[in-house]
Amino acid sequence: MPHINLPEDYPGVRSLFMYSPATAAPLNNLVQVLLHDKHTSTLTPGERELIAAYTSGLNECKYCANTHGAIAKHHLGGNENVVKDILAKNVDVADVSDKMKALLRIAAKVQQSGKAVSETEIENAKNAGATDKEIHDTVLIAAVFCMFNRYVDGLATWAPNDAAVYDAIGKQRATEGYLTKPFTVKQPA
Amino acid sequence: MPHINLPEDYPGVRSLFMYSPATAAPLNNLVQVLLHDKHTSTLTPGERELIAAYTSGLNECKYCANTHGAIAKHHLGGNENVVKDILAKNVDVADVSDKMKALLRIAAKVQQSGKAVSETEIENAKNAGATDKEIHDTVLIAAVFCMFNRYVDGLATWAPNDAAVYDAIGKQRATEGYLTKPFTVKQPA
Repeated sequence: MPHINLPEDYPGVRSLFMYSPATAAPLNNLVQVLLHDKHTSTLTPGERELIAAYTSGLNECKYCANTHGAIAKHHLGGNENVVKDILAKNVDVADVSDKMKALLRIAAKVQQSGKAVSETEIENAKNAGATDKEIHDTVLIAAVFCMFNRYVDGLATWAPNDAAVYDAIGKQRATEGYLTKPFTVKQPA
Repeated sequence: MPHINLPEDYPGVRSLFMYSPATAAPLNNLVQVLLHDKHTSTLTPGERELIAAYTSGLNECKYCANTHGAIAKHHLGGNENVVKDILAKNVDVADVSDKMKALLRIAAKVQQSGKAVSETEIENAKNAGATDKEIHDTVLIAAVFCMFNRYVDGLATWAPNDAAVYDAIGKQRATEGYLTKPFTVKQPA
């Protein structure tokens, strides 16, 4: 049960967005620009969603990991295996570029602490072809999900169990972005 | 030295806001609503800035802890001792209400992980008079600073050493909020 009285039938962060519209607006604008818009990053939306899903998996945030894993899958043409490997924290074997592997290793350090990111991870990413902007975007995405994961779990929001629900959310967000109406799911009694 | 090539003479997160204006806009809108605007929370701006400073101190983020400590001080009529106690993590002795102490204990759990927040901290806060909305705002502020601290330190931005610089930033933000021009500081060579 959530720690505070939240509107029913909205899972995870969506219940918090309904509860607090004043903070929901900038938070949704942030993820729209950071994850979805094509002109704001040279990382694809699928790559950016993988970083979000990976960070959320490291934080063991069930709602965010499954949601952003499903969004990534829809962006990546239904590639379920890469999402499974990322959510299982198997970066080494995941079917992503060496640049993406290096960026995911930066994200893993950000998940621990900002101070944990060392020159080694940065140099490895640059040597694998990552630009300054791609390193910036990776650090910010990982940091932003350290926020969302804490917001969602710190208030003990409700997370669906049904994979089909996450798949439907994933399809909606991958096609429509983050500024459309929230997804509702009948919450179990 | 920062991990990526950032504009000089802007300390901490301000260098990142200059580097990436597309994400700076929603991030500044977020802190304006979450920390500064009076109608969005029943916690005072000073109380909200204390939660931000405390979380940043727990994450050992020098720039954010000193900046938000200084903003809190200016909101709290120059009360330097309460800020010193909070930055020294001495919540028990700090000159704040029992409700604020209970909320700061929630923030400390959020800093560890969203899942670390237990019914115990929530009940203690409710028993001390905290409303659902105040608990919500506390969790979100702590989560947001777990993001900013990682963004600022994950890219190794520059933090001034001079207490007078933080005091000037604190005065500006406490009076003008977060939507005015950034503070510039001559960066040491």
